[in-house]
Amino acid sequence: MASSPEQTTHDDPPPGDGAPPRRRPGGRTGRVREQVLAAVQAELAERGYDALTVDGVAARAGVHRATVYRRWRDVGGLLADVFAAASDDDWQPADTGTVQGDLTALNEESQTALTAQPPLVSALIAASFRSDEAARGVRELWEDRYTRCEVIVTRGVERGEIPPGTDARRLLVAATAPVYHQLVLLGTPPDPDLPGQAARTAVLAASAGAFATG
Amino acid sequence: MASSPEQTTHDDPPPGDGAPPRRRPGGRTGRVREQVLAAVQAELAERGYDALTVDGVAARAGVHRATVYRRWRDVGGLLADVFAAASDDDWQPADTGTVQGDLTALNEESQTALTAQPPLVSALIAASFRSDEAARGVRELWEDRYTRCEVIVTRGVERGEIPPGTDARRLLVAATAPVYHQLVLLGTPPDPDLPGQAARTAVLAASAGAFATG
Repeated sequence: MASSPEQTTHDDPPPGDGAPPRRRPGGRTGRVREQVLAAVQAELAERGYDALTVDGVAARAGVHRATVYRRWRDVGGLLADVFAAASDDDWQPADTGTVQGDLTALNEESQTALTAQPPLVSALIAASFRSDEAARGVRELWEDRYTRCEVIVTRGVERGEIPPGTDARRLLVAATAPVYHQLVLLGTPPDPDLPGQAARTAVLAASAGAFATG
Repeated sequence: MASSPEQTTHDDPPPGDGAPPRRRPGGRTGRVREQVLAAVQAELAERGYDALTVDGVAARAGVHRATVYRRWRDVGGLLADVFAAASDDDWQPADTGTVQGDLTALNEESQTALTAQPPLVSALIAASFRSDEAARGVRELWEDRYTRCEVIVTRGVERGEIPPGTDARRLLVAATAPVYHQLVLLGTPPDPDLPGQAARTAVLAASAGAFATG
């Protein structure tokens, strides 16, 4: 696993030189991490997993390769840290006033990300089929995102739009799965109606009690 | 693309020996294709895409490597032909008497395939992120399977279970996407309730008019 930059504040001395690690201000460590993770994402999006190397990332980031090897060890460690950093934000789902509006906005965000050029999100998903560390990272990021989205369902129940006792996770998976299924697995071109249709389908099913718990 | 074995009935003479291709009975050509495609699937399921080579497939199949190179050219050609062969069957969705029963059976079949050991279906999906020919192949197989499943919706409309004018493809994607989403993308363990829940959700949404055309 990638070591956390908060715990690893030494930098740049080659391993084995006998000197104690020099302490650097946290700001520099944070900047190095930002540069390196940005380079991982750029390399992955532009060149794909097969071309991703620690040396290539270090060169693109302008960071000494020994630093990257020491802190992230290998491509798996770099990918794991990209996913960890992605969860370390203040993202929240849109609050549009209706469950269907919130789910549509969520699906539109996903569809935009999945069809962006260069294809960073698609490349990260593809990488999760190659690297166990990337697979763990992507699962933890999904878990984080679905947990943050539960508020969509809570608000909908409070407003009386959907029944109390609706299982939030099942509703969220039903609402979002078709977008990923079509774009990632079926490889169909993006359909501007799909985000809204999948959201409306999930709300209709929820109203009919499809996600009742217990 | 892989040449069709129906069109390529010559076998084994090394290319460039000046002799016209010897004609062999179709039975032998068919057997060679079966052996080679079974070897592709076994290699992929047991060792993964990275270990898949034309030489390894030829050795496992007990077929001369020149034959495999000539007929399938490379790993992409082999994978494309695995998908083509998979469509060349008489698979039909179960006819259980209800839409919900048919969709549940379909999802259970998918969940079983996605969790089988060795993980052939998962390996084929993973390969579709690596090879353009595998990606095309998997898309054509999805298209074939969804087309064959449209009869589930037709029967349901005839029985009065779901409204006339229900868009079959949208209903089928809504019913099946959660199983693939959970198992392939989210990496959650198989849930014995999921196939039936996803089927019931789609039927409830269809009854509420979620997939109305026009």
